[in-house]
Amino acid sequence: MNYKEILEKVMQRVRAEESLGKLATYIPELGNVNPDKLGVHLATVNNFDLGIGDNQEKLSIQSIAKVFSLCLAYKMVGESIWKRVDVEPSGNPFNSLVQLEADNGIPRNPFINAGAIVICDILISKLETPKADFLAFVRDVSDNPKLEFCQKIADSEKSIGYRNVALCNFIKSLGNIENKPEEVLDFYFCLCSLEMTCQELAKAFLFLANGGKKVSDGKEMLTKSETKRINALMQTCGFYDESGEFAFEVGLPGKSGVGGGIVAVYPNNYSIAVWSPKLNPKGNSYKGMMFLEMFTTETEASIF
Amino acid sequence: MNYKEILEKVMQRVRAEESLGKLATYIPELGNVNPDKLGVHLATVNNFDLGIGDNQEKLSIQSIAKVFSLCLAYKMVGESIWKRVDVEPSGNPFNSLVQLEADNGIPRNPFINAGAIVICDILISKLETPKADFLAFVRDVSDNPKLEFCQKIADSEKSIGYRNVALCNFIKSLGNIENKPEEVLDFYFCLCSLEMTCQELAKAFLFLANGGKKVSDGKEMLTKSETKRINALMQTCGFYDESGEFAFEVGLPGKSGVGGGIVAVYPNNYSIAVWSPKLNPKGNSYKGMMFLEMFTTETEASIF
Amino acid sequence: MNYKEILEKVMQRVRAEESLGKLATYIPELGNVNPDKLGVHLATVNNFDLGIGDNQEKLSIQSIAKVFSLCLAYKMVGESIWKRVDVEPSGNPFNSLVQLEADNGIPRNPFINAGAIVICDILISKLETPKADFLAFVRDVSDNPKLEFCQKIADSEKSIGYRNVALCNFIKSLGNIENKPEEVLDFYFCLCSLEMTCQELAKAFLFLANGGKKVSDGKEMLTKSETKRINALMQTCGFYDESGEFAFEVGLPGKSGVGGGIVAVYPNNYSIAVWSPKLNPKGNSYKGMMFLEMFTTETEASIF
Amino acid sequence: MNYKEILEKVMQRVRAEESLGKLATYIPELGNVNPDKLGVHLATVNNFDLGIGDNQEKLSIQSIAKVFSLCLAYKMVGESIWKRVDVEPSGNPFNSLVQLEADNGIPRNPFINAGAIVICDILISKLETPKADFLAFVRDVSDNPKLEFCQKIADSEKSIGYRNVALCNFIKSLGNIENKPEEVLDFYFCLCSLEMTCQELAKAFLFLANGGKKVSDGKEMLTKSETKRINALMQTCGFYDESGEFAFEVGLPGKSGVGGGIVAVYPNNYSIAVWSPKLNPKGNSYKGMMFLEMFTTETEASIF
Repeated sequence: MNYKEILEKVMQRVRAEESLGKLATYIPELGNVNPDKLGVHLATVNNFDLGIGDNQEKLSIQSIAKVFSLCLAYKMVGESIWKRVDVEPSGNPFNSLVQLEADNGIPRNPFINAGAIVICDILISKLETPKADFLAFVRDVSDNPKLEFCQKIADSEKSIGYRNVALCNFIKSLGNIENKPEEVLDFYFCLCSLEMTCQELAKAFLFLANGGKKVSDGKEMLTKSETKRINALMQTCGFYDESGEFAFEVGLPGKSGVGGGIVAVYPNNYSIAVWSPKLNPKGNSYKGMMFLEMFTTETEASIF
Repeated sequence: MNYKEILEKVMQRVRAEESLGKLATYIPELGNVNPDKLGVHLATVNNFDLGIGDNQEKLSIQSIAKVFSLCLAYKMVGESIWKRVDVEPSGNPFNSLVQLEADNGIPRNPFINAGAIVICDILISKLETPKADFLAFVRDVSDNPKLEFCQKIADSEKSIGYRNVALCNFIKSLGNIENKPEEVLDFYFCLCSLEMTCQELAKAFLFLANGGKKVSDGKEMLTKSETKRINALMQTCGFYDESGEFAFEVGLPGKSGVGGGIVAVYPNNYSIAVWSPKLNPKGNSYKGMMFLEMFTTETEASIF
Repeated sequence: MNYKEILEKVMQRVRAEESLGKLATYIPELGNVNPDKLGVHLATVNNFDLGIGDNQEKLSIQSIAKVFSLCLAYKMVGESIWKRVDVEPSGNPFNSLVQLEADNGIPRNPFINAGAIVICDILISKLETPKADFLAFVRDVSDNPKLEFCQKIADSEKSIGYRNVALCNFIKSLGNIENKPEEVLDFYFCLCSLEMTCQELAKAFLFLANGGKKVSDGKEMLTKSETKRINALMQTCGFYDESGEFAFEVGLPGKSGVGGGIVAVYPNNYSIAVWSPKLNPKGNSYKGMMFLEMFTTETEASIF
Repeated sequence: MNYKEILEKVMQRVRAEESLGKLATYIPELGNVNPDKLGVHLATVNNFDLGIGDNQEKLSIQSIAKVFSLCLAYKMVGESIWKRVDVEPSGNPFNSLVQLEADNGIPRNPFINAGAIVICDILISKLETPKADFLAFVRDVSDNPKLEFCQKIADSEKSIGYRNVALCNFIKSLGNIENKPEEVLDFYFCLCSLEMTCQELAKAFLFLANGGKKVSDGKEMLTKSETKRINALMQTCGFYDESGEFAFEVGLPGKSGVGGGIVAVYPNNYSIAVWSPKLNPKGNSYKGMMFLEMFTTETEASIF
């Protein structure tokens, strides 16, 4: 079977499954999404791409944006970035504040909220116009000059983001935030509000399957070694408290967001984005994970 | 460059590096090992193998044995094994007891001590003669009928193993140990005392690079899917609190032991064992990790 | 109203209350006690004593024994005892193991299990025949040469005491236990099995209301200053995770046990023992606490 | 010896002691205080009062204000206040955030920062003009219409209060703050900036030694039962992580502040305020605790 046939076959099976999970209603605006959306898009390093279902509809990428902000900061700061944030899985969320204190304000990895907030702080210190510059980077990596933040989503998240305010101020008290917490958080909520389709996501992540170079024009976004490291980080830390499960079931590096999106990367082969808004209890797309598990089983290919 | 040239080149560089780290003197007998030992052995799925340095000297494999015990238990019990032990990284060691309580006695993964102890409990319930049966399994997987436990090491560890006694009794109090703690611990200390050379280790792990089948005779030890899962687990949880770092630097699934051994697996390609007794502060072989990092950099091949 | 009238009035009201709470069935033998037992005994520094209900029936004093063992060890070792155990409340039980590690094996206070186990270790190191010497001390303080341990209760607790085995071995691993864990625990389970009546308990605690001197014969068991400190400790740490509640509701120093006994001390006035086997969710006698609250309300006397 | 002689004797000895400890420089303005200040003031329920040293100089009362805010809120809300904040000691500070989460946002007691912040939230919901009404209450209780907040101190604390911002937002995220975090914190920092002399503090706390009634005019500020409970709370929770030590050494209920002030209450007898700005490692006045320990030793009177 080729990719097209497999995508269709898996799509059919996933569609037939009962729609379990729940919308991330804690962000009010996300509660308004149609819970039955289901889209997938695959892009290969051979410049082939292919989608199915709602693959051309915008979703709120949420935490998936943390990969873009990390890549941009890593590119600018180099290896010294790891003095501000570590590369280890975080164990259960429950311990995060204690861990932060024990670790002197160094978050365990750049994909938990604490780490992503520190990355935002780094970007604010380095960029002239942080929001515009970040947007330019994502537009570049995805060859799509039309990508935009969604102010409504950003505002919605800000209106209930007490825990992130707590987190940012706590890290500030531990000395690992340089800028004003309000500024850092404003940037953070903004990034997470970026809207992209599955097609756009798959294409935007393709450079991570291609040794750091864009497939479209060969432009190097990250070095080979940096790319390998981003992939390793997505593998060990990309799915909150379910990273082990994802490695175990799917076997590809990836990153999820509470908007129900997941992007996974098969180095030297492809990137794939799925979207289904209902989340499992650990905050990852229920049908999204199911789709990727079936897909890697059918293609008989994973990094393991 | 071929593997032989790369092994030699990297060996030369690693030998030249200052010998940092410390012996694991907390187990008295391990403190007697010559700290300058350095051995490497590579075995490929094409039935080629090659060693250098002290690759034919016995080392105490310690926690590397947890991979064997897991494979044996998984083979016997199947997927229901994951009801007794989870597949997530554990965060920092500091929290392990709290996590255990919060998780009702279900250890975070089978490679932290708590998880390995539960696996021992499973094996004791299933095997007629646990020690002999375990040994038979490792002898089978490595085509080596001469492997033996080292009673002196087992006794040495037992004599100071208060923390493991604490752990096992704590899990028992939470209801996830069926047998007597003394029996479970006796078996656990015994497994960890197994002695193997780098050559033996590389060969014994080769089936994990070969979809679960032994390269020597094609015998299936685990299914393809089970093998993928063991590799995913080694990737996310194989190096204590440094699993992220190992994924990041080396990019291969693997498992380390406080005897200074590390085995890593490149699926569909090779398994490689290194040994250097001095450990970094997180308990992993200092020069072992350095060797593997240089090796994957030179071969330009990792799973990421 | 005099004490007699108040005791009777309160007794009547407490008897009429619904019998909530549960027996401590986690120790099998304690589950066999008649849950409706209710006894009270008051002893004053004026050498007056008075009981009501089942005040002359034996109960398993359990953790109340920790006051006796602490007094004996304090008497023998003096202020240096506080190098081995601290004097602070422990917060919620949940954190105890983490706290122990953070505090290098120094338990927060001598009344949590960890602390009582360390006190046992101190006594074993100091006493020729620990069990007999301890018994002699309690017999002396209570003028009762017939007090005995209950081997059946000790064995019952030992048979399921995995968590205490865990605790003792954990402290040993942190360096704050000198003797063998088995010996320490054997002594610990033995102490807790002591059986006394409310009358015996009230009399045995009377020296703590009398500046350290026995009322019967004036013999000094502890100095005035030491006595004050034991009382302060009972006030802040005597009721597990409910010490604040007890200070708040009752306003007297005291100690409870899972056998359903509570002893409280009103310095310069009296000691009082109550017994009702059913425990509230925090492990303290449900009707016992109710009785003491009503009693201090009716007498309009507390230390606050 | 009478109180006057004892105060003088103890003062002489404490003055002679080496001045250990450190100023609370984490609040910039507090770092400007003369570290050698030493004042004491005693007020008895017999309407006698007496001071020595710098007893008439203003100090920043800081956390001592938490007693006033609790009394005011308790008076207004009654026993239902304990649904919003518990009455248990908090164990070590380290765990506070974890505890908060485990306890669903209910702080362990009203004297840790989390609890005091919740009390502020209650007052804001209940009072028309919170700051003015609070000030009126303290002026009433101390018969001193001139007491004032110190805006400079409040601003100083606000400028570095990231951890309290974190705490308040965290509790808000757990649902136990009704008002805007900014408002709650503005009120909180304001209260803590209140300035009083030792004389004013001793007089202001005297109603707590007098069953809830002001000694000057007999006005009931709290009922007898409420007063007893406030005293019990100060006993078990008044000194951060050193409450047990204070009960143990001094044996009186009390409350300390990082400005170096301590007030203690001997029910039915007196209240006493001491001030010495240098703090021990746990954040309590070094010479203040020393003074009170010597004082209760010399007077041979404590609640235990």
